[in-house]
Amino acid sequence: MSIKKVVVAGGGVLGSQIAFQAAFKGFDVTIWLRSDASIGRSQPKIDRLHNIYLAEFKDIKTKLGTKGAAFPRGLIDDPEHISAEKIAELEAKTEAAYKNLKLTTDLVAAAKDADIVIESMAENPQAKKEFYDALSAVLEDKTIVATNSSSMVPSMFRDHVKNPKRYLAIHFANNIWRNNMTEIMGHDGTDPAAFDAVVAFAKDIGMIPLKVLKEQPGYLLNSMLIPFLTAGEALLANEVGDAKTIDLAWRLGTGSPLGPFQILDIVGLETAYNITMNRPDASDPASLHGRIAKILKGYIDQGKTGINAGEGFYKYK
Amino acid sequence: MSIKKVVVAGGGVLGSQIAFQAAFKGFDVTIWLRSDASIGRSQPKIDRLHNIYLAEFKDIKTKLGTKGAAFPRGLIDDPEHISAEKIAELEAKTEAAYKNLKLTTDLVAAAKDADIVIESMAENPQAKKEFYDALSAVLEDKTIVATNSSSMVPSMFRDHVKNPKRYLAIHFANNIWRNNMTEIMGHDGTDPAAFDAVVAFAKDIGMIPLKVLKEQPGYLLNSMLIPFLTAGEALLANEVGDAKTIDLAWRLGTGSPLGPFQILDIVGLETAYNITMNRPDASDPASLHGRIAKILKGYIDQGKTGINAGEGFYKYK
Repeated sequence: MSIKKVVVAGGGVLGSQIAFQAAFKGFDVTIWLRSDASIGRSQPKIDRLHNIYLAEFKDIKTKLGTKGAAFPRGLIDDPEHISAEKIAELEAKTEAAYKNLKLTTDLVAAAKDADIVIESMAENPQAKKEFYDALSAVLEDKTIVATNSSSMVPSMFRDHVKNPKRYLAIHFANNIWRNNMTEIMGHDGTDPAAFDAVVAFAKDIGMIPLKVLKEQPGYLLNSMLIPFLTAGEALLANEVGDAKTIDLAWRLGTGSPLGPFQILDIVGLETAYNITMNRPDASDPASLHGRIAKILKGYIDQGKTGINAGEGFYKYK
Repeated sequence: MSIKKVVVAGGGVLGSQIAFQAAFKGFDVTIWLRSDASIGRSQPKIDRLHNIYLAEFKDIKTKLGTKGAAFPRGLIDDPEHISAEKIAELEAKTEAAYKNLKLTTDLVAAAKDADIVIESMAENPQAKKEFYDALSAVLEDKTIVATNSSSMVPSMFRDHVKNPKRYLAIHFANNIWRNNMTEIMGHDGTDPAAFDAVVAFAKDIGMIPLKVLKEQPGYLLNSMLIPFLTAGEALLANEVGDAKTIDLAWRLGTGSPLGPFQILDIVGLETAYNITMNRPDASDPASLHGRIAKILKGYIDQGKTGINAGEGFYKYK
């Protein structure tokens, strides 16, 4: 079950990153998109990634020979032996990835001979089911199908995938060329050989694969991050501390670089609000989640949605 | 309400550290102990701290002029302007602290003219009450009383303290000369002037004071740490991942230096077990906390109680 031909379905933020990174690592990559309009929206993302990778290598060149310099882990797999020649090679690979990456709306052609299809579409269950139904009609028997969904688990969709044994989840973090952690999770019927093939593929595209041994909403990271962030939010909602002091307590107490409100600013307060509103008690304004939601909504209503907006719990301008 | 004369009640791990650090910072410090046998157990702790501080300064001297060198924050408050002369001064202060620190079993003499009494006794509510009752009989009106309890809140004991308005909590971390974070928390009747005086005192002894604005079991740090550690333990107990992978997910996902099982090894598995067993459902072996307790117990029964034992979830030998 070796993976050579890769299809990424969806050209959003993560879809384009997965596709570009796989192409950079020498895989034959096609992005499948629903319409020509989608291609029009995805191409600029690919252009941007092309520029980012080249800028990263330019930056890496200035750091050559600097002791303790940190390089993007998804780009440089052997930081001990990095050299000007090696970087020139990687720049050439970036150009090749940019040249070879295909975008298409033709699902039949894309699926033909594909070893893996990575579904990286919006978090809309109905749209995902429709895509899987359409894909299954043209899918070859050997093809592994993987979802990059962060909030939904594979068993939700396996009945819509032609070969459920070859269906699982591979979850990436944003900016995968730097944050190269990948969580791989099957449902209880996933063939271990398919799981292992995806673990090997993740390594081959420069990721650190983390094996999630059982289906778990939130995988490993978010299963810890959400209770932690909620605990920080609860301290604020209960007026036990202010955001700055709570963050400082966490940083000083654990040596972590970021406290909960700094992380919330990165996650984005709208996402945090949506997660909070999914709690059963959130519609009661007197409940803990209701009060947390109210605080988040207060920031959102002022446009303070986090680091991308220039302000959230902290100012970044 | 300026603090000059300090009494620490209890000469255990933290009591001795608080006393030595305050003495090092020039305060008049007395450790009150229940018996001569307690003095016999505390003196070696003071001797050890004396040696540790001198060893720290010896180490700091070798790092002078090294760019980006990190110094113990409780010892060096101005790392930008550290010099050989300044270190010689701090070594002299260490010797003065060691010479001037008093240990006594005489509560009347200790309490006389004390500005603050820091209760740092074992986490036994009955023993604390008895101590507060005895102290209150000899306490001066001006004296602030502070508990270093990590698991109990001031309102549990305020009725046993002569002047409840001058009673609050000041919570230190272990190895306070390095981990110089201090959480300060009153009950709802604590006088803000007493609170502020303790915040100022914490700064004066080289701590970073964190204001906890409302009584909260676990203060700020443990209120986040425990849900986070429980979430990590739940992933292990539910067989979603192994300890190493769960830790790696947290480190890679948040940039933190330590994952939950590395932190549990530092906290100690016996403490983690006791915290887990305090949950109402822990006595049911099928419940989440029952299953977490069983895993911890399995390590403890093998003597793998954490980093101090040389092995816990990880090996340190």
